[in-house]
Amino acid sequence: MTAVAKTQEPTVVNGINVDDLFGLIEEVKQDPAKGATRWRVATTWQGQARSRAEITGFGIGGEQVDRRFSIDVDEPVELGGTNRFANPQEYLLAALNACMTVGYAAQCAVRGITLEKLEIETEGDIDLRGFLGIDPAVANGYESLKYTVRIKGDAKPEQFAEVHEAVMATSPNFYNVANPVALKPDLVVE
Amino acid sequence: MTAVAKTQEPTVVNGINVDDLFGLIEEVKQDPAKGATRWRVATTWQGQARSRAEITGFGIGGEQVDRRFSIDVDEPVELGGTNRFANPQEYLLAALNACMTVGYAAQCAVRGITLEKLEIETEGDIDLRGFLGIDPAVANGYESLKYTVRIKGDAKPEQFAEVHEAVMATSPNFYNVANPVALKPDLVVE
Repeated sequence: MTAVAKTQEPTVVNGINVDDLFGLIEEVKQDPAKGATRWRVATTWQGQARSRAEITGFGIGGEQVDRRFSIDVDEPVELGGTNRFANPQEYLLAALNACMTVGYAAQCAVRGITLEKLEIETEGDIDLRGFLGIDPAVANGYESLKYTVRIKGDAKPEQFAEVHEAVMATSPNFYNVANPVALKPDLVVE
Repeated sequence: MTAVAKTQEPTVVNGINVDDLFGLIEEVKQDPAKGATRWRVATTWQGQARSRAEITGFGIGGEQVDRRFSIDVDEPVELGGTNRFANPQEYLLAALNACMTVGYAAQCAVRGITLEKLEIETEGDIDLRGFLGIDPAVANGYESLKYTVRIKGDAKPEQFAEVHEAVMATSPNFYNVANPVALKPDLVVE
């Protein structure tokens, strides 16, 4: 018996199944409704500055997928909290970095670039005069965020530059932070 | 001996020390530099769609305060991950909800309103044609987010409505999501 080429073996780069990814792209191209995702987080106040976010699932292509996660959030003692968990501003940066990380891993994978290292460090300033209601002319949040991406792998700098542009052009949380998202509240007094 | 009024007893509402909060407001009014905060998160790729965010401290009034937290992020299996942790879009919603929760607790505290319950549920849709690079005209992230705040405590509906307006007007992460934040990247190829 001679060796037979395993034509069914999936192509995996950076741990990402590239065949599946191209399959998803093709599927959504054929039927955009397959690419509709819905995200939901329910947060309950835990006293003082603490809260717990509960996730019970997400929607994709009209189907609900059950998954359970809890995220605990607090504030530093200096801002009235008990410092048991990271604070909301840090979670926002973690969310941004994580989304871009998926972007780099995937954009490299589809180009056949194997990553050896990827780090993103993000930093920003917030002037408390906004949150404390001292001066309405002061921005309440980040006016800007600077971030440094350190990347290493089997590609030329110009290929990494192309990946970098692609991540900025497609990352959902890059979009969510860089662009205005319309917030539509409903207040229910019980 | 007769009972002596404890004039030094701090005023605590919703677990929040209101004296400290008013003290901070006064301090920042006198010297805005005391209200300068700096937030930093360093994320390292953990393979596939996983990442770990590390927090080592934050800055306030020019001082660095050490604190250590790790935040793990993943993607659902349907999006190429291993579903071990919540995903970046969910962390963003948790960050938004947590920040507004602090806002409601604090805005109620300074008005002497004792909260009995506070829940915020947030939901939004993302069309994967953006992330997958299928159609550049499609928004990559949330175009809008709807959220429901359920609040209960010893105040009239109009007082809660005033608190609700104050939270929207001052919450840092409400600002960060509702407004464009300038993202300034630096790519370092190693």
